[in-house]
Amino acid sequence: MTEKPSALRSAVAAVSTPPGKGGVAVIRISGADARQIADGIFFPKSQKPLTSYPPRTQVYGEIRREDRRIDDGMATFFEAPHSFTGEDTAEISCHGGILVTAAVLETALLAGARMAEPGEFTRRAFLNGKLSLPEAEAIGDLLEAQSMSQVRLAAGEGKDRLAAAYAEIREELTAALGSIFARIDYPDEDLGELSIEEILRALRTADEKAGKLLDSYRTGRAVRFGIETAIVGKPNVGKSTLYNALLGRDAAIVTEIPGTTRDVLTEAVSLGEVMLRLSDTAGMREATDDPIEAIGVQRSKDKLASAELILALFDPSRPTDEEDGEVLRKIAASPAEKILIFTKSDLPEAEGFDRAAVEKLSENKIEISAKALPDEAREQLQKRVGELFTDGSLVIGQDAVLSSARQHAALRRAKDHLEAAIAAFSSGVEEDAAASELESALSAIAELDGRAVTEEVVANIFSRFCVGK
Amino acid sequence: MTEKPSALRSAVAAVSTPPGKGGVAVIRISGADARQIADGIFFPKSQKPLTSYPPRTQVYGEIRREDRRIDDGMATFFEAPHSFTGEDTAEISCHGGILVTAAVLETALLAGARMAEPGEFTRRAFLNGKLSLPEAEAIGDLLEAQSMSQVRLAAGEGKDRLAAAYAEIREELTAALGSIFARIDYPDEDLGELSIEEILRALRTADEKAGKLLDSYRTGRAVRFGIETAIVGKPNVGKSTLYNALLGRDAAIVTEIPGTTRDVLTEAVSLGEVMLRLSDTAGMREATDDPIEAIGVQRSKDKLASAELILALFDPSRPTDEEDGEVLRKIAASPAEKILIFTKSDLPEAEGFDRAAVEKLSENKIEISAKALPDEAREQLQKRVGELFTDGSLVIGQDAVLSSARQHAALRRAKDHLEAAIAAFSSGVEEDAAASELESALSAIAELDGRAVTEEVVANIFSRFCVGK
Repeated sequence: MTEKPSALRSAVAAVSTPPGKGGVAVIRISGADARQIADGIFFPKSQKPLTSYPPRTQVYGEIRREDRRIDDGMATFFEAPHSFTGEDTAEISCHGGILVTAAVLETALLAGARMAEPGEFTRRAFLNGKLSLPEAEAIGDLLEAQSMSQVRLAAGEGKDRLAAAYAEIREELTAALGSIFARIDYPDEDLGELSIEEILRALRTADEKAGKLLDSYRTGRAVRFGIETAIVGKPNVGKSTLYNALLGRDAAIVTEIPGTTRDVLTEAVSLGEVMLRLSDTAGMREATDDPIEAIGVQRSKDKLASAELILALFDPSRPTDEEDGEVLRKIAASPAEKILIFTKSDLPEAEGFDRAAVEKLSENKIEISAKALPDEAREQLQKRVGELFTDGSLVIGQDAVLSSARQHAALRRAKDHLEAAIAAFSSGVEEDAAASELESALSAIAELDGRAVTEEVVANIFSRFCVGK
Repeated sequence: MTEKPSALRSAVAAVSTPPGKGGVAVIRISGADARQIADGIFFPKSQKPLTSYPPRTQVYGEIRREDRRIDDGMATFFEAPHSFTGEDTAEISCHGGILVTAAVLETALLAGARMAEPGEFTRRAFLNGKLSLPEAEAIGDLLEAQSMSQVRLAAGEGKDRLAAAYAEIREELTAALGSIFARIDYPDEDLGELSIEEILRALRTADEKAGKLLDSYRTGRAVRFGIETAIVGKPNVGKSTLYNALLGRDAAIVTEIPGTTRDVLTEAVSLGEVMLRLSDTAGMREATDDPIEAIGVQRSKDKLASAELILALFDPSRPTDEEDGEVLRKIAASPAEKILIFTKSDLPEAEGFDRAAVEKLSENKIEISAKALPDEAREQLQKRVGELFTDGSLVIGQDAVLSSARQHAALRRAKDHLEAAIAAFSSGVEEDAAASELESALSAIAELDGRAVTEEVVANIFSRFCVGK
């Protein structure tokens, strides 16, 4: 990191509230000169400067530009390091009109602040040691959260437990490494360090903890990112009904995420704790002469290839036909998890329905009556998906659950080095090799929690933030 | 007003920041039970309740719902009457994600707050005597402001001067009325009240002040509401060029306001201090068989009929023809202000161009060369429009400028009664009639500043506010 120390970082300003019209808007100014800028544009009714009040006190006054009032509102001064960024920070609440908000921001910029870049306040908080990198990532996740599980994952106590688990692993490894170095440097002396058995025990404990966290990623990923899901089945088997049943019940948290092309939409649907990223795979028919239909078929194939979960629909009230056969072949070829959904379970099964062929595909099956479809489908699917993609013993928001791909990769590397260290150390002779592996493990952990991290990684994390955060 | 006193008004809550995703969002809770609600959902890190801190102090802590953290953030408690609404108020700043913001609001509602209606916080502020009705109207204007002049009009010092002018008029009338009553009740005693001459002087001073304010409405209206403007001229005379020149230069504050029908758009363009509400009046041709074109022609006619300003374009480099004649007739029939715009002033004037006929329409004319059109047109138009629609001696944001139709109507009524009172009083005998007229004038003033006003008027004013304001 080649960033300047915080004392030298000059002030940036931005509207921190969402863009648009509202009752109030908050303009945030943070940096070494936030104090002068605030006192130059905000004039408390009391005539005393804002920064003469006890920090963190909301003060009523006027925002003025060239001696003319452009709004009245509240302002608060936070003295470094007791602010979100760790820098001197002023927050001005003005009326939330679009133009008046822009005018107040402009006034702060004219007074010497620079326009903040996306995520710059959070980035400064990280650089000033107010936030760890996982905490900054959690803020980003929280702002994007589309389901209450995602909110709990990003903001609940589990986040602290995850940080604590990282710290414990780091401490175990640091203690073990210290003892190993002591054994290498002073092989014949008893320096009160850990014994070989104690070192091994510490490393194995750390390894176990890392393993547990890595295992939680499956759950965390299903909650945070969602499960790529394809609904398949021959025409008129009930795909759209299922699709709508899944979408319709939770309208508030259903969003449309534009896919790679304009025409392919992925719907994010929360199902219990997890999110399904549902893709429409209409057009399973292989042979087509219509070039436009052919594009649709190719897209469906691509979606099927990238699916992690296939919801395969079959109608047992009708005999198995060639179209079912085609569906069966496609599904069999996919490595995704599969849930078989037998529709119209209230109707008698057709004699020609080849249940055995279908049930060979997967042990996960659901029977749904045509009438009760929406509720039953959701309920049973939620149970099955939960079993397949999450660890039921984990409580989202309470337990330490890993959900960041970046942290997962770093922890994976740390664990690999740790296991190499254990192997080297258990052999009883290669203390140097074990120490070297442990050092690698520790630097992977330092990357994980942001104690040592490249600027690219930091830039990448903050690039997804909005201006004003 | 049949509203409950503030002490009995139970808490309402809303997101006060604009809807959507941002860095921070503010949830406001105001009412008698805001204290308990805040302490029931926001838990300072210090473990001390929020409301145990000195009021107006921003405190860091967690928002919890059913004992689980859903976010961390800052909260501030404002003790009645020292808050925006005049009631106990808590403001919670949480992370500005859409779902997390909704979750924090929901937590406040579960804890006993009712969802606030649009404008309810400002309405409570008014009912609790924290704001006058003109101040509440100014807040509404500020939130909607589309030009810096509108921001200054709604938020600048002129607003205070206007309030002061209302108060002065009220005081003059009250004093005069008191003296008149004294004269009626104790006609032979000297009670130290105003003499006849002093009463008349007070009434005339008030009348003059009211007149000055009423005169300022022309300017205030042009700034706040804008001037309905039609650009007319025969095809290809340069209407679109002028239209685009007016629109293009100030893109940031140009907005599209949907008209009564889908197809008719009015563009609001700020020109100096005022706003032009430009309507497209394509299709001036009278005789058409095409029913769709006929609709367009009718719309153009309607727009022309409601225009306050007509910008009439003529091209002197071409001989006057029948189309020009049609334009001339239409313009002559309109009571609107007119500005004649002679385009292509750099080209020689055609022999057949009937300048005299055109110049009969109006004394306001502008010559524009084809090349320099955008800048010249704006500059010259701004000057002319300013002369025609505003009082150049008034400084927007500094002087008292009336811009509310409601206040204008009430003040107009007050002035009429006041003048009737003066007439009655000057006749020297009708003191009872004068007193009665003065009482009517005072009640119009009380309506104007919201001291006495019907619930309908209040409801109407606050109905245009957003939820959270």
